[in-house]
Amino acid sequence: MTIGTGDSVAPVDPVGMIAGNGSFPLIFLEAAQKAGIRVVVVAHEGETDPAIETMGFPVRWIRLGQVGAIFDTFHKNGISRAAFVGGVRKPRLFDLRPDWKGMMILGRLSRYHDDEALRALADEFEKEGITIVPSTLLLPDLAAPVGPLTRRKPTASEEADIRVGIDVARILGPADIGQCLVVREKVVVAVEAIEGTDETIRRAGRFGGEGGVVVKMAKPGQDLRFDLPSVGPETIRVMMEAKARVLAVEAGKTLLFSREETLGLADSADIAVVGIE
Amino acid sequence: MTIGTGDSVAPVDPVGMIAGNGSFPLIFLEAAQKAGIRVVVVAHEGETDPAIETMGFPVRWIRLGQVGAIFDTFHKNGISRAAFVGGVRKPRLFDLRPDWKGMMILGRLSRYHDDEALRALADEFEKEGITIVPSTLLLPDLAAPVGPLTRRKPTASEEADIRVGIDVARILGPADIGQCLVVREKVVVAVEAIEGTDETIRRAGRFGGEGGVVVKMAKPGQDLRFDLPSVGPETIRVMMEAKARVLAVEAGKTLLFSREETLGLADSADIAVVGIE
Repeated sequence: MTIGTGDSVAPVDPVGMIAGNGSFPLIFLEAAQKAGIRVVVVAHEGETDPAIETMGFPVRWIRLGQVGAIFDTFHKNGISRAAFVGGVRKPRLFDLRPDWKGMMILGRLSRYHDDEALRALADEFEKEGITIVPSTLLLPDLAAPVGPLTRRKPTASEEADIRVGIDVARILGPADIGQCLVVREKVVVAVEAIEGTDETIRRAGRFGGEGGVVVKMAKPGQDLRFDLPSVGPETIRVMMEAKARVLAVEAGKTLLFSREETLGLADSADIAVVGIE
Repeated sequence: MTIGTGDSVAPVDPVGMIAGNGSFPLIFLEAAQKAGIRVVVVAHEGETDPAIETMGFPVRWIRLGQVGAIFDTFHKNGISRAAFVGGVRKPRLFDLRPDWKGMMILGRLSRYHDDEALRALADEFEKEGITIVPSTLLLPDLAAPVGPLTRRKPTASEEADIRVGIDVARILGPADIGQCLVVREKVVVAVEAIEGTDETIRRAGRFGGEGGVVVKMAKPGQDLRFDLPSVGPETIRVMMEAKARVLAVEAGKTLLFSREETLGLADSADIAVVGIE
Protein backbone atom coordinates (compact mmCIF):
# COMPACT_ATOMS: atom_id res chain seq x y z
CA MET A 1 0.00 0.00 0.00
CA THR A 2 1.34 3.44 -0.97
CA ILE A 3 0.09 6.74 0.29
CA GLY A 4 0.23 9.95 -1.76
CA THR A 5 2.88 12.53 -0.92
CA GLY A 6 0.27 14.74 0.70
CA ASP A 7 -0.13 17.36 -2.03
CA SER A 8 -3.88 16.92 -1.77
CA VAL A 9 -6.19 13.85 -1.62
CA ALA A 10 -8.77 13.21 1.07
CA PRO A 11 -7.79 13.83 4.68
CA VAL A 12 -6.59 10.58 6.24
CA ASP A 13 -7.58 9.45 9.74
CA PRO A 14 -4.99 10.14 12.38
CA VAL A 15 -2.57 7.29 13.10
CA GLY A 16 -1.30 6.30 16.53
CA MET A 17 2.38 5.53 16.97
CA ILE A 18 3.79 3.44 19.82
CA ALA A 19 7.38 4.63 19.61
CA GLY A 20 10.39 2.52 20.55
CA ASN A 21 14.05 3.45 20.24
CA GLY A 22 16.34 4.30 17.34
CA SER A 23 15.75 6.62 14.42
CA PHE A 24 12.73 4.84 12.97
CA PRO A 25 10.10 6.83 14.97
CA LEU A 26 11.63 10.08 13.68
CA ILE A 27 11.76 8.76 10.10
CA PHE A 28 8.13 7.67 10.42
CA LEU A 29 7.08 11.16 11.54
CA GLU A 30 8.99 12.81 8.69
CA ALA A 31 7.10 10.62 6.23
CA ALA A 32 3.83 11.46 7.98
CA GLN A 33 4.61 15.16 7.70
CA LYS A 34 5.23 14.84 3.96
CA ALA A 35 2.04 12.84 3.55
CA GLY A 36 0.06 15.33 5.65
CA ILE A 37 -1.02 12.65 8.09
CA ARG A 38 -1.67 13.46 11.74
CA VAL A 39 0.14 11.17 14.17
CA VAL A 40 -0.45 10.85 17.89
CA VAL A 41 2.71 9.59 19.56
CA VAL A 42 3.10 7.49 22.68
CA ALA A 43 6.82 7.48 23.53
CA HIS A 44 8.72 5.30 26.02
CA GLU A 45 10.87 6.92 28.69
CA GLY A 46 14.49 5.82 28.41
CA GLU A 47 13.88 4.25 24.99
CA THR A 48 12.50 6.83 22.59
CA ASP A 49 14.78 9.62 21.34
CA PRO A 50 13.66 12.86 23.08
CA ALA A 51 14.02 14.55 19.65
CA ILE A 52 10.58 13.08 18.98
CA GLU A 53 9.23 16.19 20.74
CA THR A 54 10.60 18.47 18.02
CA MET A 55 8.68 16.92 15.11
CA GLY A 56 5.46 18.87 15.54
CA PHE A 57 3.23 16.01 16.71
CA PRO A 58 1.65 15.50 20.16
CA VAL A 59 3.74 13.15 22.34
CA ARG A 60 2.72 11.35 25.51
CA TRP A 61 5.57 9.81 27.51
CA ILE A 62 4.97 6.55 29.33
CA ARG A 63 7.04 3.85 30.97
CA LEU A 64 7.33 0.40 29.42
CA GLY A 65 4.24 -1.64 30.27
CA GLN A 66 1.80 1.24 30.80
CA VAL A 67 -0.62 -0.18 28.28
CA GLY A 68 -3.66 1.45 29.86
CA ALA A 69 -2.03 4.83 29.28
CA ILE A 70 -1.63 4.04 25.57
CA PHE A 71 -5.31 3.14 25.20
CA ASP A 72 -6.31 6.24 27.13
CA THR A 73 -4.22 8.53 24.88
CA PHE A 74 -5.42 6.92 21.68
CA HIS A 75 -9.09 6.93 22.70
CA LYS A 76 -8.95 10.60 23.63
CA ASN A 77 -7.47 11.36 20.21
CA GLY A 78 -9.84 9.29 18.09
CA ILE A 79 -7.19 6.79 16.98
CA SER A 80 -8.52 3.64 15.31
CA ARG A 81 -5.22 2.35 13.87
CA ALA A 82 -1.73 2.43 15.27
CA ALA A 83 1.76 1.15 14.53
CA PHE A 84 4.62 -0.11 16.71
CA VAL A 85 7.59 1.86 15.39
CA GLY A 86 11.12 1.04 16.56
CA GLY A 87 12.11 -1.66 18.99
CA VAL A 88 12.53 -1.84 22.72
CA ARG A 89 15.87 -3.10 23.98
CA LYS A 90 15.15 -6.52 25.35
CA PRO A 91 17.17 -6.06 28.53
CA ARG A 92 14.63 -3.36 29.38
CA LEU A 93 11.90 -5.95 29.57
CA PHE A 94 13.25 -6.68 33.04
CA ASP A 95 12.46 -3.13 34.12
CA LEU A 96 8.80 -3.50 33.18
CA ARG A 97 6.50 -1.40 35.34
CA PRO A 98 3.17 -2.54 33.95
CA ASP A 99 0.00 -0.71 34.82
CA TRP A 100 -3.17 -2.68 35.49
CA LYS A 101 -3.86 -3.30 31.79
CA GLY A 102 -0.23 -4.29 31.22
CA MET A 103 -0.36 -6.73 34.14
CA MET A 104 -3.46 -8.36 32.74
CA ILE A 105 -1.66 -9.05 29.47
CA LEU A 106 1.66 -10.14 30.96
CA GLY A 107 -0.10 -12.39 33.44
CA ARG A 108 -1.46 -14.47 30.59
CA LEU A 109 1.92 -15.17 29.04
CA SER A 110 3.64 -18.47 29.71
CA ARG A 111 6.98 -16.93 28.88
CA TYR A 112 8.09 -13.46 27.84
CA HIS A 113 8.42 -14.60 24.28
CA ASP A 114 8.61 -11.58 21.99
CA ASP A 115 6.05 -12.72 19.52
CA GLU A 116 3.68 -14.06 22.09
CA ALA A 117 3.80 -10.86 24.14
CA LEU A 118 3.33 -8.69 21.09
CA ARG A 119 0.48 -10.74 19.72
CA ALA A 120 -1.29 -10.65 23.07
CA LEU A 121 -0.78 -6.90 23.08
CA ALA A 122 -2.14 -6.56 19.53
CA ASP A 123 -5.23 -8.55 20.55
CA GLU A 124 -5.82 -6.12 23.41
CA PHE A 125 -5.60 -3.23 20.96
CA GLU A 126 -8.15 -4.91 18.70
CA LYS A 127 -10.50 -5.35 21.65
CA GLU A 128 -10.17 -1.61 22.28
CA GLY A 129 -11.10 -0.95 18.63
CA ILE A 130 -7.57 -0.06 17.52
CA THR A 131 -6.09 -1.98 14.56
CA ILE A 132 -2.32 -2.50 14.56
CA VAL A 133 -0.89 -1.68 11.14
CA PRO A 134 2.66 -2.37 9.86
CA SER A 135 5.25 0.25 10.74
CA THR A 136 6.14 0.43 7.05
CA LEU A 137 2.67 1.82 6.25
CA LEU A 138 4.05 5.22 5.29
CA LEU A 139 7.40 3.97 4.00
CA PRO A 140 6.84 0.90 1.85
CA ASP A 141 10.32 1.33 0.30
CA LEU A 142 12.08 0.87 3.60
CA ALA A 143 12.24 -2.90 3.30
CA ALA A 144 15.44 -4.27 1.75
CA PRO A 145 14.99 -5.56 -1.82
CA VAL A 146 16.28 -8.89 -3.15
CA GLY A 147 19.76 -9.13 -4.64
CA PRO A 148 23.14 -7.41 -4.34
CA LEU A 149 22.86 -3.80 -3.15
CA THR A 150 26.53 -2.82 -3.23
CA ARG A 151 29.20 -2.73 -5.90
CA ARG A 152 30.89 -5.77 -4.46
CA LYS A 153 28.96 -9.05 -4.56
CA PRO A 154 29.61 -11.90 -2.13
CA THR A 155 32.27 -14.36 -3.28
CA ALA A 156 31.42 -18.04 -3.73
CA SER A 157 32.82 -18.82 -0.29
CA GLU A 158 30.86 -15.94 1.27
CA GLU A 159 27.74 -17.22 -0.49
CA ALA A 160 28.33 -20.58 1.19
CA ASP A 161 28.56 -18.82 4.57
CA ILE A 162 25.30 -16.95 3.88
CA ARG A 163 23.69 -20.33 3.18
CA VAL A 164 24.93 -21.75 6.51
CA GLY A 165 23.62 -18.61 8.25
CA ILE A 166 20.17 -18.96 6.69
CA ASP A 167 19.97 -22.66 7.58
CA VAL A 168 20.94 -22.05 11.20
CA ALA A 169 18.69 -18.98 11.55
CA ARG A 170 15.76 -21.11 10.41
CA ILE A 171 16.56 -23.70 13.09
CA LEU A 172 16.85 -20.97 15.72
CA GLY A 173 13.68 -19.15 14.72
CA PRO A 174 11.22 -21.09 16.88
CA ALA A 175 13.40 -20.37 19.94
CA ASP A 176 12.80 -16.65 19.38
CA ILE A 177 16.53 -15.93 19.27
CA GLY A 178 19.11 -15.50 16.60
CA GLN A 179 17.74 -12.74 14.39
CA CYS A 180 21.40 -12.05 13.71
CA LEU A 181 24.24 -14.48 13.42
CA VAL A 182 27.75 -14.29 12.08
CA VAL A 183 29.35 -17.09 10.06
CA ARG A 184 32.91 -17.52 8.97
CA GLU A 185 34.23 -20.38 6.87
CA LYS A 186 31.02 -22.30 7.54
CA VAL A 187 31.33 -21.98 11.33
CA VAL A 188 28.70 -20.02 13.28
CA VAL A 189 30.89 -17.68 15.31
CA ALA A 190 28.23 -15.59 17.10
CA VAL A 191 24.50 -15.77 17.79
CA GLU A 192 22.44 -12.81 19.00
CA ALA A 193 20.20 -13.24 22.05
CA ILE A 194 19.38 -9.98 23.88
CA GLU A 195 22.67 -8.16 23.44
CA GLY A 196 21.75 -6.63 20.09
CA THR A 197 23.20 -6.88 16.61
CA ASP A 198 26.11 -4.46 17.08
CA GLU A 199 27.44 -6.34 20.08
CA THR A 200 27.02 -9.65 18.24
CA ILE A 201 29.04 -8.39 15.26
CA ARG A 202 31.76 -7.02 17.57
CA ARG A 203 32.01 -10.33 19.42
CA ALA A 204 32.26 -12.23 16.12
CA GLY A 205 35.25 -10.05 15.22
CA ARG A 206 36.85 -10.60 18.61
CA PHE A 207 36.47 -14.39 18.69
CA GLY A 208 36.02 -15.35 15.06
CA GLY A 209 38.50 -12.99 13.45
CA GLU A 210 38.24 -11.00 10.22
CA GLY A 211 35.98 -11.81 7.30
CA GLY A 212 32.68 -12.50 9.09
CA VAL A 213 29.47 -12.87 7.13
CA VAL A 214 26.58 -11.22 9.01
CA VAL A 215 23.16 -12.74 8.37
CA LYS A 216 20.12 -10.90 9.65
CA MET A 217 16.68 -12.42 9.26
CA ALA A 218 13.17 -11.98 10.54
CA LYS A 219 11.80 -14.81 12.62
CA PRO A 220 9.97 -17.50 10.62
CA GLY A 221 6.38 -16.36 10.26
CA GLN A 222 7.31 -12.99 11.73
CA ASP A 223 4.30 -10.74 12.15
CA LEU A 224 5.17 -7.71 10.02
CA ARG A 225 3.17 -5.46 12.33
CA PHE A 226 5.84 -5.72 14.99
CA ASP A 227 9.42 -4.66 15.39
CA LEU A 228 11.22 -5.76 12.22
CA PRO A 229 14.95 -6.38 12.09
CA SER A 230 16.68 -3.27 10.82
CA VAL A 231 20.12 -2.20 9.63
CA GLY A 232 21.58 1.21 8.87
CA PRO A 233 24.84 3.18 8.71
CA GLU A 234 25.78 2.20 12.27
CA THR A 235 25.58 -1.48 11.34
CA ILE A 236 28.16 -0.91 8.60
CA ARG A 237 30.38 1.14 10.96
CA VAL A 238 30.39 -1.72 13.47
CA MET A 239 31.16 -4.20 10.68
CA MET A 240 34.11 -2.05 9.58
CA GLU A 241 35.39 -2.06 13.15
CA ALA A 242 34.98 -5.86 13.42
CA LYS A 243 36.36 -6.37 9.89
CA ALA A 244 33.23 -8.22 8.77
CA ARG A 245 32.87 -8.52 5.01
CA VAL A 246 29.27 -9.27 4.10
CA LEU A 247 25.85 -8.18 5.34
CA ALA A 248 22.99 -10.41 4.17
CA VAL A 249 19.51 -9.20 5.19
CA GLU A 250 16.20 -10.87 4.60
CA ALA A 251 14.53 -8.99 1.75
CA GLY A 252 11.06 -7.58 2.41
CA LYS A 253 11.35 -8.24 6.14
CA THR A 254 14.39 -6.23 7.14
CA LEU A 255 14.34 -2.45 7.21
CA LEU A 256 17.20 -0.64 5.54
CA PHE A 257 17.45 2.83 7.09
CA SER A 258 19.29 5.71 5.35
CA ARG A 259 19.80 3.49 2.35
CA GLU A 260 22.10 5.81 0.43
CA GLU A 261 24.40 6.49 3.38
CA THR A 262 24.40 2.81 4.43
CA LEU A 263 25.30 1.45 0.98
CA GLY A 264 27.77 4.29 0.34
CA LEU A 265 29.61 3.42 3.56
CA ALA A 266 29.58 -0.28 2.62
CA ASP A 267 30.98 0.53 -0.84
CA SER A 268 33.74 2.62 0.69
CA ALA A 269 34.73 -0.32 2.91
CA ASP A 270 34.31 -2.94 0.15
CA ILE A 271 31.62 -4.64 2.20
CA ALA A 272 28.99 -6.56 0.22
CA VAL A 273 25.34 -5.98 1.20
CA VAL A 274 22.79 -8.37 -0.23
CA GLY A 275 19.04 -8.93 0.14
CA ILE A 276 18.30 -12.64 0.57
CA GLU A 277 15.00 -14.50 0.17
CA MET B 1 33.72 -49.55 33.01
CA THR B 2 35.93 -49.13 36.05
CA ILE B 3 39.61 -49.82 36.23
CA GLY B 4 41.39 -50.93 39.40
CA THR B 5 43.50 -48.41 41.31
CA GLY B 6 46.69 -50.02 40.10
CA ASP B 7 47.77 -51.83 43.26
CA SER B 8 48.26 -54.96 41.17
CA VAL B 9 46.05 -56.64 38.50
CA ALA B 10 47.16 -57.53 35.00
CA PRO B 11 49.15 -54.97 33.01
CA VAL B 12 46.83 -52.94 30.82
CA ASP B 13 47.59 -51.99 27.23
CA PRO B 14 48.95 -48.48 26.81
CA VAL B 15 46.37 -45.81 26.00
CA GLY B 16 46.86 -42.93 23.57
CA MET B 17 45.74 -39.47 24.58
CA ILE B 18 45.01 -36.68 22.11
CA ALA B 19 45.27 -33.77 24.51
CA GLY B 20 43.36 -30.51 24.15
CA ASN B 21 43.34 -27.56 26.54
CA GLY B 22 42.32 -27.07 30.16
CA SER B 23 43.09 -29.21 33.17
CA PHE B 24 41.41 -32.40 31.97
CA PRO B 25 44.54 -33.86 30.26
CA LEU B 26 46.48 -33.43 33.53
CA ILE B 27 43.67 -34.96 35.57
CA PHE B 28 43.53 -37.87 33.12
CA LEU B 29 47.27 -38.51 33.53
CA GLU B 30 47.01 -38.37 37.32
CA ALA B 31 44.33 -41.05 37.19
CA ALA B 32 46.48 -43.11 34.80
CA GLN B 33 49.42 -42.83 37.19
CA LYS B 34 47.27 -44.08 40.07
CA ALA B 35 45.95 -46.93 37.94
CA GLY B 36 49.43 -47.83 36.69
CA ILE B 37 48.43 -47.35 33.06
CA ARG B 38 50.93 -46.22 30.46
CA VAL B 39 49.74 -43.26 28.38
CA VAL B 40 51.30 -41.91 25.19
CA VAL B 41 50.40 -38.24 24.81
CA VAL B 42 49.97 -36.20 21.66
CA ALA B 43 49.68 -32.56 22.74
CA HIS B 44 48.59 -29.49 20.73
CA GLU B 45 50.85 -26.46 20.56
CA GLY B 46 49.12 -23.38 21.90
CA GLU B 47 46.30 -25.46 23.37
CA THR B 48 47.65 -28.04 25.78
CA ASP B 49 49.07 -26.91 29.11
CA PRO B 50 52.89 -27.28 28.92
CA ALA B 51 52.70 -28.79 32.43
CA ILE B 52 51.74 -31.99 30.61
CA GLU B 53 55.50 -32.55 30.22
CA THR B 54 55.94 -32.88 33.98
CA MET B 55 53.60 -35.83 34.46
CA GLY B 56 56.08 -38.58 33.62
CA PHE B 57 54.55 -39.72 30.32
CA PRO B 58 56.00 -39.35 26.81
CA VAL B 59 54.61 -36.28 25.00
CA ARG B 60 54.71 -35.46 21.30
CA TRP B 61 53.79 -31.88 20.39
CA ILE B 62 51.90 -31.24 17.15
CA ARG B 63 49.95 -28.43 15.58
CA LEU B 64 46.17 -28.66 15.16
CA GLY B 65 45.35 -30.74 12.10
CA GLN B 66 48.53 -32.84 12.00
CA VAL B 67 46.58 -36.05 12.04
CA GLY B 68 49.28 -38.05 10.26
CA ALA B 69 51.64 -37.19 13.11
CA ILE B 70 49.18 -38.60 15.64
CA PHE B 71 48.90 -41.92 13.77
CA ASP B 72 52.64 -42.09 13.41
CA THR B 73 53.20 -41.55 17.15
CA PHE B 74 50.57 -44.05 18.18
CA HIS B 75 51.71 -46.74 15.74
CA LYS B 76 55.30 -46.45 16.93
CA ASN B 77 54.10 -46.91 20.51
CA GLY B 78 51.74 -49.83 19.95
CA ILE B 79 48.59 -47.88 20.78
CA SER B 80 45.31 -49.59 19.84
CA ARG B 81 42.92 -47.34 21.79
CA ALA B 82 43.03 -43.63 22.41
CA ALA B 83 40.92 -40.85 23.93
CA PHE B 84 40.34 -37.20 23.03
CA VAL B 85 40.89 -35.43 26.34
CA GLY B 86 40.08 -31.72 26.70
CA GLY B 87 38.69 -29.44 24.04
CA VAL B 88 40.21 -27.23 21.40
CA ARG B 89 39.11 -23.60 21.41
CA LYS B 90 36.90 -23.29 18.37
CA PRO B 91 38.40 -20.02 17.19
CA ARG B 92 41.59 -22.03 16.72
CA LEU B 93 39.92 -24.06 14.00
CA PHE B 94 40.68 -21.12 11.71
CA ASP B 95 44.38 -21.60 12.31
CA LEU B 96 44.29 -25.20 11.13
CA ARG B 97 47.53 -26.34 9.51
CA PRO B 98 46.50 -29.82 8.43
CA ASP B 99 49.06 -32.29 7.20
CA TRP B 100 48.21 -34.56 4.30
CA LYS B 101 46.09 -36.92 6.40
CA GLY B 102 44.32 -33.97 8.00
CA MET B 103 43.58 -32.44 4.60
CA MET B 104 42.06 -35.70 3.39
CA ILE B 105 39.61 -35.68 6.30
CA LEU B 106 38.78 -31.97 6.20
CA GLY B 107 38.25 -32.11 2.46
CA ARG B 108 35.36 -34.51 2.92
CA LEU B 109 33.42 -32.25 5.27
CA SER B 110 30.55 -30.14 3.97
CA ARG B 111 30.95 -27.78 6.88
CA TYR B 112 33.31 -27.64 9.85
CA HIS B 113 30.61 -29.00 12.05
CA ASP B 114 32.12 -30.19 15.32
CA ASP B 115 30.45 -33.54 15.40
CA GLU B 116 30.91 -34.25 11.76
CA ALA B 117 34.62 -33.41 11.87
CA LEU B 118 35.18 -35.48 14.98
CA ARG B 119 33.26 -38.43 13.66
CA ALA B 120 35.22 -38.37 10.41
CA LEU B 121 38.39 -38.22 12.48
CA ALA B 122 37.28 -41.15 14.65
CA ASP B 123 36.58 -43.17 11.49
CA GLU B 124 40.12 -42.50 10.31
CA PHE B 125 41.45 -43.74 13.64
CA GLU B 126 39.40 -46.92 13.31
CA LYS B 127 40.83 -47.48 9.82
CA GLU B 128 44.29 -47.20 11.36
CA GLY B 129 43.35 -49.84 13.92
CA ILE B 130 42.97 -47.39 16.82
CA THR B 131 39.68 -47.40 18.74
CA ILE B 132 38.53 -44.10 20.22
CA VAL B 133 37.39 -44.60 23.81
CA PRO B 134 35.54 -42.09 26.05
CA SER B 135 37.75 -39.61 27.88
CA THR B 136 36.05 -40.68 31.13
CA LEU B 137 37.52 -44.19 30.79
CA LEU B 138 39.78 -43.74 33.81
CA LEU B 139 37.48 -41.36 35.67
CA PRO B 140 33.95 -42.70 35.50
CA ASP B 141 32.92 -40.48 38.45
CA LEU B 142 33.73 -37.28 36.61
CA ALA B 143 30.28 -36.98 35.02
CA ALA B 144 27.79 -34.86 36.96
CA PRO B 145 25.10 -36.91 38.74
CA VAL B 146 21.36 -36.18 38.68
CA GLY B 147 19.79 -33.86 41.27
CA PRO B 148 20.82 -30.96 43.48
CA LEU B 149 24.55 -30.89 44.26
CA THR B 150 24.69 -27.84 46.50
CA ARG B 151 23.05 -26.84 49.77
CA ARG B 152 20.75 -24.43 47.97
CA LYS B 153 18.22 -25.89 45.54
CA PRO B 154 16.79 -23.88 42.64
CA THR B 155 13.62 -21.95 43.52
CA ALA B 156 10.37 -22.60 41.62
CA SER B 157 11.05 -19.63 39.37
CA GLU B 158 14.63 -20.79 38.74
CA GLU B 159 13.26 -24.26 37.94
CA ALA B 160 11.04 -22.64 35.31
CA ASP B 161 14.10 -20.91 33.81
CA ILE B 162 15.98 -24.23 33.72
CA ARG B 163 13.03 -25.70 31.82
CA VAL B 164 13.14 -22.85 29.26
CA GLY B 165 16.89 -23.39 28.90
CA ILE B 166 16.50 -27.12 28.29
CA ASP B 167 13.74 -26.54 25.71
CA VAL B 168 15.78 -23.97 23.79
CA ALA B 169 19.02 -26.00 24.01
CA ARG B 170 17.17 -28.94 22.42
CA ILE B 171 16.04 -26.71 19.55
CA LEU B 172 19.57 -25.37 19.10
CA GLY B 173 21.25 -28.76 19.27
CA PRO B 174 21.05 -29.68 15.58
CA ALA B 175 22.71 -26.34 14.72
CA ASP B 176 25.75 -27.44 16.71
CA ILE B 177 25.63 -24.30 18.86
CA GLY B 178 24.30 -23.40 22.24
CA GLN B 179 25.90 -25.94 24.57
CA CYS B 180 25.52 -23.16 27.12
CA LEU B 181 22.76 -20.64 27.44
CA VAL B 182 21.65 -18.28 30.16
CA VAL B 183 18.01 -17.66 31.01
CA ARG B 184 16.46 -15.07 33.26
CA GLU B 185 12.77 -14.73 34.01
CA LYS B 186 12.01 -17.01 31.06
CA VAL B 187 14.01 -14.92 28.58
CA VAL B 188 17.10 -16.41 26.90
CA VAL B 189 19.67 -13.69 27.58
CA ALA B 190 22.79 -15.28 26.05
CA VAL B 191 23.64 -18.15 23.72
CA GLU B 192 27.13 -19.59 23.32
CA ALA B 193 28.60 -19.98 19.85
CA ILE B 194 32.43 -20.05 19.72
CA GLU B 195 33.18 -17.56 22.49
CA GLY B 196 33.11 -20.15 25.27
CA THR B 197 31.02 -20.60 28.38
CA ASP B 198 32.80 -18.06 30.58
CA GLU B 199 32.32 -15.26 28.06
CA THR B 200 28.68 -16.26 27.59
CA ILE B 201 28.01 -16.09 31.34
CA ARG B 202 29.77 -12.71 31.59
CA ARG B 203 27.72 -11.29 28.72
CA ALA B 204 24.51 -12.55 30.30
CA GLY B 205 25.42 -10.59 33.43
CA ARG B 206 26.21 -7.48 31.43
CA PHE B 207 23.06 -7.46 29.31
CA GLY B 208 20.62 -9.56 31.29
CA GLY B 209 21.44 -8.41 34.80
CA GLU B 210 21.72 -10.40 38.02
CA GLY B 211 20.07 -13.72 38.70
CA GLY B 212 20.91 -15.64 35.52
CA VAL B 213 20.27 -19.37 35.29
CA VAL B 214 23.10 -21.06 33.38
CA VAL B 215 22.11 -24.22 31.52
CA LYS B 216 24.86 -26.37 30.06
CA MET B 217 23.99 -29.41 28.01
CA ALA B 218 25.61 -31.88 25.66
CA LYS B 219 24.38 -31.80 22.09
CA PRO B 220 21.46 -34.16 21.39
CA GLY B 221 22.95 -37.53 20.55
CA GLN B 222 26.38 -36.28 21.57
CA ASP B 223 29.06 -38.87 20.99
CA LEU B 224 30.53 -39.41 24.45
CA ARG B 225 33.93 -40.19 22.94
CA PHE B 226 34.45 -36.54 22.08
CA ASP B 227 34.91 -33.32 23.98
CA LEU B 228 32.16 -33.24 26.60
CA PRO B 229 30.87 -30.02 28.11
CA SER B 230 32.65 -29.39 31.38
CA VAL B 231 32.40 -27.10 34.38
CA GLY B 232 34.71 -26.47 37.30
CA PRO B 233 35.74 -23.91 39.91
CA GLU B 234 36.39 -21.26 37.26
CA THR B 235 32.79 -21.58 36.02
CA ILE B 236 31.56 -20.75 39.53
CA ARG B 237 34.00 -17.84 39.83
CA VAL B 238 32.70 -16.35 36.58
CA MET B 239 29.12 -16.86 37.77
CA MET B 240 29.92 -15.04 41.01
CA GLU B 241 31.33 -12.15 38.98
CA ALA B 242 28.26 -12.07 36.71
CA LYS B 243 25.91 -12.57 39.69
CA ALA B 244 24.37 -15.67 38.13
CA ARG B 245 22.42 -17.83 40.59
CA VAL B 246 22.01 -21.33 39.20
CA LEU B 247 24.16 -23.78 37.23
CA ALA B 248 22.21 -26.63 35.66
CA VAL B 249 24.37 -29.23 33.91
CA GLU B 250 23.27 -32.27 31.98
CA ALA B 251 23.88 -35.27 34.22
CA GLY B 252 26.04 -38.05 32.81
CA LYS B 253 27.15 -35.90 29.89
CA THR B 254 28.80 -32.94 31.56
CA LEU B 255 32.11 -33.28 33.36
CA LEU B 256 32.36 -31.77 36.80
CA PHE B 257 36.04 -31.08 37.51
CA SER B 258 37.39 -30.56 41.05
CA ARG B 259 33.98 -31.44 42.40
CA GLU B 260 34.69 -30.58 46.02
CA GLU B 261 36.19 -27.19 45.25
CA THR B 262 33.51 -26.37 42.66
CA LEU B 263 30.57 -27.18 44.95
CA GLY B 264 32.29 -25.59 47.95
CA LEU B 265 32.67 -22.33 46.04
CA ALA B 266 29.05 -22.53 44.88
CA ASP B 267 27.88 -23.08 48.46
CA SER B 268 29.89 -20.12 49.68
CA ALA B 269 28.20 -17.91 47.05
CA ASP B 270 24.74 -19.43 47.60
CA ILE B 271 24.71 -20.62 43.99
CA ALA B 272 22.61 -23.71 43.26
CA VAL B 273 24.23 -26.42 41.13
CA VAL B 274 21.97 -29.14 39.81
CA GLY B 275 22.34 -32.14 37.50
CA ILE B 276 19.47 -32.28 35.03
CA GLU B 277 18.27 -35.19 32.88
